[in-house]
Amino acid sequence: MIVGGKAIAEEIRFELKNEIQAREHAPRLDIILAGDDPASAAYVKRKQVFGKSIGAEVVVHETSEDAYPDSIALIAFIKDIVQNPATDGIIVQLPLPESLRTHTRSVLDAVPPEKDVDCLSSGALERFASRESDIRPPSVGVVDEIFRRHSVDIRGKKIALVGATGGLVGRPLALWFSSRGIPFSAVNTKTPPVQMREILKNADIVISGVGKAGLITADMVKAGVIAIDAGTSSSFGTLRGDMDPAIALKAELFTPVPGGVGPITVAMLFRNLLALANKSKGSP
Amino acid sequence: MIVGGKAIAEEIRFELKNEIQAREHAPRLDIILAGDDPASAAYVKRKQVFGKSIGAEVVVHETSEDAYPDSIALIAFIKDIVQNPATDGIIVQLPLPESLRTHTRSVLDAVPPEKDVDCLSSGALERFASRESDIRPPSVGVVDEIFRRHSVDIRGKKIALVGATGGLVGRPLALWFSSRGIPFSAVNTKTPPVQMREILKNADIVISGVGKAGLITADMVKAGVIAIDAGTSSSFGTLRGDMDPAIALKAELFTPVPGGVGPITVAMLFRNLLALANKSKGSP
Repeated sequence: MIVGGKAIAEEIRFELKNEIQAREHAPRLDIILAGDDPASAAYVKRKQVFGKSIGAEVVVHETSEDAYPDSIALIAFIKDIVQNPATDGIIVQLPLPESLRTHTRSVLDAVPPEKDVDCLSSGALERFASRESDIRPPSVGVVDEIFRRHSVDIRGKKIALVGATGGLVGRPLALWFSSRGIPFSAVNTKTPPVQMREILKNADIVISGVGKAGLITADMVKAGVIAIDAGTSSSFGTLRGDMDPAIALKAELFTPVPGGVGPITVAMLFRNLLALANKSKGSP
Repeated sequence: MIVGGKAIAEEIRFELKNEIQAREHAPRLDIILAGDDPASAAYVKRKQVFGKSIGAEVVVHETSEDAYPDSIALIAFIKDIVQNPATDGIIVQLPLPESLRTHTRSVLDAVPPEKDVDCLSSGALERFASRESDIRPPSVGVVDEIFRRHSVDIRGKKIALVGATGGLVGRPLALWFSSRGIPFSAVNTKTPPVQMREILKNADIVISGVGKAGLITADMVKAGVIAIDAGTSSSFGTLRGDMDPAIALKAELFTPVPGGVGPITVAMLFRNLLALANKSKGSP
């Protein structure tokens, strides 16, 4: 079965829209877009459109690499936004420009957990890992949402996590599994092919978040696999996942790229925004 | 075979002592000991004794919980030490007192990678994970040292990492394996026993860093296993590892607690200190 990411996102969009209509104030999301990566600009645009459609306020701060030549200046800029009481949530769009990329961790950590829609700051991740917070990294929310909707019970299943230390997908999912005692096998693009194949072939569930098109081919997974493709890369303007679409033919459940994980991820961001807004200002 | 951690630490101690004697200045380590945990005080004492024996300067800053009631005050205190040009390396002794524990990440991140002997700050971990730095978390150095000395080739081996998201052992090792494409199975204390047993029984190498005595019993591992016990807990003043000592009887290689991983860890800290000192001030 192919997961209809767009349809799921639509349902969540409808729920969120109703919730916001019942509120006194629209929640506000501030997005910091540093640099001029066209893919990042496109992702930010999608978030703007989604936010607008549910009645959220989305403010985009476009900053050029020249304006913020070092991470200290960018962090100061983010901290100013953090101070604004009108702001309920903040997203620092990744990847940062090349010149700032090694400072990604400290830039993300400038966002306090109370406003961290992406749940990627160290503080937010730790609260999440220790189950102190119901704000979850969007990739975790997406996988959980898909599993719930398709009645996938992961207990006792063999899970392969491809790209297990990646910041956006692998690490949050590793923390999620670990916080619940769910074992998984961690592999990545450097794993020798023989081992990669053995682990994938034995896996009941394969989740990949690498961003390398065609990394996982149909012969590498077993029939009836649950295949969640959270990796995206673009080739000549076409969005591609880590998994060969032919996997859909032998999978019990398969998320296509585009149209699988991606749309749900955007919806999850706004679910987090609303949860943060309710916490700081009280629900209606 | 039982790994003689003390003997290995002695050899490294001798090497480091010679290196320091050939230098113009003794390297200086500052240790911040917040609170009054007796186990932490004992660990700090061991570091002092080791440092003194190789001719390093070790300055311990004991701070009471009252003096640093919040993490902001403690971070300011650490940043003062960071500014001191005489300091080559800094250790914040963990665990922090209960009242500061949720701020562990931001306290650790107050130490810049250039002075981070423990390699536990986000910046240092990221440099390590992206292989930009030869400074490694001590637990990684220890495991690598043991594997090198006992000619353990981990390629192609099935590795189980028990406590894979733990800050001191699990996460650094997970990053180390991932940075080299070595797959591993991540389990922890919450993993259902059936799955835990299946994964451990199949593992050629088991590394545990939980700190729960008797977590892994001899019947859970296979004959000929390489068993690295990096977990410590104390029970009525006796130091115990995660693994039942009886595992030594069926293991190809086994690290006892005490006397295995522990002594080598201290030696690794000072190897890092010397490497950091050489970088900042130039080797002799």
